[in-house]
Amino acid sequence: MAAFDLDTIRHSSAHLMAQAISRLWPDLNIQFGVGPVIESGFYYDVEMDHKLSEDDLKSIEDEMKKIIKEKLPIERKVLEKEEALTFFKKEGQDLKVELINSLPESEEISCYQQGEFIDLCRGPHVEKTSDLPMAFKLLHVAGAYWRGDEKRQMLQRVYAACFKDRKELKEHLHFLEEAKKRDHRKLGKELELFHFEKVAPASPFFMPKGARIYNELVDFMRRVYREYGYDEVITPQILDSDLWQTSGHYDHYKENMYFSNIDEKEYAVKPMNCPCHMLMFAHYKYSYRDLPLRYADFGRLHRYEKAGAVAGLTRVRTFCQDDAHIFIEMEGIQKEIQKLMEMFFICYKHFGFKNIKVNLSTRPEKKAGDDATWDKAEEALKQALDASGHEYSIKEGDGAFYGPKIDVEISDALNRYHQLGTIQLDFQLPERFNLKYTTSEGTESRPVVIHRALLGSLERFIGVYLEHVAGAFPFWLAPEQAIIVPVNNATHLEYAQKLNTDLHNLGYRVRVDDRNESMGYKTRQIQKSKAPFMLVIGDKEMENDSVSIRSYGAKFATSISTAELKEKFLELNKERIPVELQKA
Amino acid sequence: MAAFDLDTIRHSSAHLMAQAISRLWPDLNIQFGVGPVIESGFYYDVEMDHKLSEDDLKSIEDEMKKIIKEKLPIERKVLEKEEALTFFKKEGQDLKVELINSLPESEEISCYQQGEFIDLCRGPHVEKTSDLPMAFKLLHVAGAYWRGDEKRQMLQRVYAACFKDRKELKEHLHFLEEAKKRDHRKLGKELELFHFEKVAPASPFFMPKGARIYNELVDFMRRVYREYGYDEVITPQILDSDLWQTSGHYDHYKENMYFSNIDEKEYAVKPMNCPCHMLMFAHYKYSYRDLPLRYADFGRLHRYEKAGAVAGLTRVRTFCQDDAHIFIEMEGIQKEIQKLMEMFFICYKHFGFKNIKVNLSTRPEKKAGDDATWDKAEEALKQALDASGHEYSIKEGDGAFYGPKIDVEISDALNRYHQLGTIQLDFQLPERFNLKYTTSEGTESRPVVIHRALLGSLERFIGVYLEHVAGAFPFWLAPEQAIIVPVNNATHLEYAQKLNTDLHNLGYRVRVDDRNESMGYKTRQIQKSKAPFMLVIGDKEMENDSVSIRSYGAKFATSISTAELKEKFLELNKERIPVELQKA
Repeated sequence: MAAFDLDTIRHSSAHLMAQAISRLWPDLNIQFGVGPVIESGFYYDVEMDHKLSEDDLKSIEDEMKKIIKEKLPIERKVLEKEEALTFFKKEGQDLKVELINSLPESEEISCYQQGEFIDLCRGPHVEKTSDLPMAFKLLHVAGAYWRGDEKRQMLQRVYAACFKDRKELKEHLHFLEEAKKRDHRKLGKELELFHFEKVAPASPFFMPKGARIYNELVDFMRRVYREYGYDEVITPQILDSDLWQTSGHYDHYKENMYFSNIDEKEYAVKPMNCPCHMLMFAHYKYSYRDLPLRYADFGRLHRYEKAGAVAGLTRVRTFCQDDAHIFIEMEGIQKEIQKLMEMFFICYKHFGFKNIKVNLSTRPEKKAGDDATWDKAEEALKQALDASGHEYSIKEGDGAFYGPKIDVEISDALNRYHQLGTIQLDFQLPERFNLKYTTSEGTESRPVVIHRALLGSLERFIGVYLEHVAGAFPFWLAPEQAIIVPVNNATHLEYAQKLNTDLHNLGYRVRVDDRNESMGYKTRQIQKSKAPFMLVIGDKEMENDSVSIRSYGAKFATSISTAELKEKFLELNKERIPVELQKA
Repeated sequence: MAAFDLDTIRHSSAHLMAQAISRLWPDLNIQFGVGPVIESGFYYDVEMDHKLSEDDLKSIEDEMKKIIKEKLPIERKVLEKEEALTFFKKEGQDLKVELINSLPESEEISCYQQGEFIDLCRGPHVEKTSDLPMAFKLLHVAGAYWRGDEKRQMLQRVYAACFKDRKELKEHLHFLEEAKKRDHRKLGKELELFHFEKVAPASPFFMPKGARIYNELVDFMRRVYREYGYDEVITPQILDSDLWQTSGHYDHYKENMYFSNIDEKEYAVKPMNCPCHMLMFAHYKYSYRDLPLRYADFGRLHRYEKAGAVAGLTRVRTFCQDDAHIFIEMEGIQKEIQKLMEMFFICYKHFGFKNIKVNLSTRPEKKAGDDATWDKAEEALKQALDASGHEYSIKEGDGAFYGPKIDVEISDALNRYHQLGTIQLDFQLPERFNLKYTTSEGTESRPVVIHRALLGSLERFIGVYLEHVAGAFPFWLAPEQAIIVPVNNATHLEYAQKLNTDLHNLGYRVRVDDRNESMGYKTRQIQKSKAPFMLVIGDKEMENDSVSIRSYGAKFATSISTAELKEKFLELNKERIPVELQKA
């Protein structure tokens, strides 16, 4: 067997699937759309008068394997445009006819044939069906508009995983299984963290346990801010459109904003905090001695996203960011960016994210400001990154409309990358708001503004982190840190409640499970809740002033004294702040 | 001198003022509007072709005193309507003519004359001008539309304080002086706590120091919540009008809400959290074992207020409340209300509010639900209040549209009462949202909902509390708890910075003032900032490992060791939670 590259294998497997479908439903007029290679396999869009089921996918797979065993040669044929049109018209493949019609006149049109099946295709392909490894799995069927156009017909898109060998496929299927188990929407529901309601699309409702995580994250960032000299501010959410004109959002971001009329004037719900912070800076007189001035703001933001684009917590219409704006002198940028990179790396490491990628995004096509200013801004960021010693890639044209930016991506437990932090340099807003500070020479100068967020949207971060830890939060962040279970309510409940009060008074989030259920049932329930610790109290524990402690995921419990338990909790609770920022 | 009551004295003094004005500007055609008695004096509306200044007020006062000394008798005259109209027309008093025309035909029309001055008036009055005590002060002039109608002409309203004797007047003027000094808008600016911007009417911008107070108050309530079994939730802010139809806000509160269209549907920015909490309760299955369930929510609310009605922090368009909703069984209401009253009294006492008034407000005219349900709700609150042992007044017809309520008013340092907390019983929302829980008998029943807020709007509370403490916050709440001043930067700065780091690491909000300014200047600045402590470091302090500590408002500093300082701060910081809720 000649060595074919993975893309070719996947592409030929897409044809294989189409052929199998044709064979299984010979009486239906099946229309094939496009069947491209995607990240971990391929899909094919088909239009047919039969809704494909899970069972059908199994049958199609079997048929595909049969065709492989038939060792059909795969042959390339070049046709004239008219010839191709005549052929596919005759075959009743209207979608293919439409595709051919949209090709440039000069384009060579090729088809590939294997046995009775002919498909319009640029190729290349493997030489015969038996060149294909049996390392594919049809995953699911989803609706997809023909040519992505909401006004055209809905096709059935059959997704398949496809790899070079069974081992790679198995690994991928395991990954998918794991990702499914960790799906934050599923976990969010199971752990009673959050849910959605029809009256507020893409706007999560955080239940008590979800809100505890949310507030702990805010407090975590506040502790970090305290060490890095940030000052929190609180700013309004609904502001006159005049402000959004000044900031440029009205021209560049209007389609993502919500508007409301008040006293016959137009107001917008803020999609970003920056214009408010510009007003604050302008309201007072600052000198070089006050800079860098760092305003942090956990203000709630609203950004319109199309109904089709929203998903779980990762793409919502309302969220808070660990947002801050730094007002700084031109000369201070490099040092501040280095400080920011240190803060980012310390925090990401603390959350257990191992791989961290840094990208520098440069000026986009649709931008505010002249090229000379952009040159200056991009150069400043490059120098700062070079000095900070982290590797980084350059993403040409991916900057915000108001300035270049640094994006930071982290890899989660399943090795998927997520963009979390951003650092954006801004020479535009200080100009638009006519910001000034007094220099050490007593002259007036314009500060530079840095927009930065570390966790980014807290909603999105909770989604990403929930999947990263598969719902099993570290002690300091867990909504319930320990659940105390008396073996027998009649004899052990009082002692359990006393321990509960002790731990509560020490600041921990604990509760007693005193339901009249079996120990086995309670244990399973507590494991399902993923609370870090289950503390069982029986006769022995009461005698010894101890607890039987079982960590989440552990098979067995061990016995420790109450004093040791408190010592252990105290130690674990130190993780509320990264070790690098802890004080003696 | 016969004993005249204060209202009569004030009313006659208003005539006196009008006469004085007439005498001082004999050549102007001065129109007099109305001149009623108000809480601490009187005012008179006048229309004249001269803008009254501070100096004019002084001249008018002098003229008033002169007229008193003239001992003019004050005589009552009864006129026929036609007679009165003819007289005031002749006098050129068009406003009086309008007033006479609006009187019912049958009404007896009386005038009072003192010397050359005649005014239309129902009386009664003192007998002669010398019956009036010289215990008045003209305070200021404000614009006021004739008959309160924006479409009519603007008059000059001259306000005056007026009392029975000089002593009472003096006390009142002192009170006014004190209130002016404590005005939270003034203090907010001076202490750099918050300010307003044109682009966000009635929506405060909290600067770092203001945000610290704000966040400390939220944390304070969170600590209290922890002891009273509340669970925080986080809910969306923009919700489909369908929800507001269900909740009844669309019918009863629409004029105070902001609307925005999203995907061709109408949405509203939430003015209250309750409907979100109803959805949350309905989303899960609860049983009697889960009740009372207490959802707390610091969600930002938006309520439209007319531009003329807003003022400082006390009446804003956007605010957060320490809002919570309690879902409870009918039988649990009395116990829960008693618990609430305990919580309220503990907290208000902690903030140093001495007098606490409790009011029970009953069904208003515009209400939802039938009378039988209202009877039940009102009776439940009365019984609970009776059992809690606090005195209370009944405010007939002052309840919310959805249920009766308990209002709690507190008196501040200037003995002014402010309504802060509310407890509202609600039988309507559980009905509208079809809420159910499983009773101990396994049947389904409707929970009752209690809406409650203790501090109320945090914005308003900050305004009230700022005036109560005149900007000098207690240690635990102060935005800057101590400011460290090295006597000489060259020799004492390093030590000062070390102390600063120590205190910072212990969790305190401190800073070093290392500006090159004199000790006198710095001391004045720090006193002005009202920080609880100024810590001075000189040679002696460095030698002894001590600080020279000066409390806010103290004339002298005392010397204490650094260890004692830390002990003192630790003790003061315990006030972060009321003593009744502190743990050993």
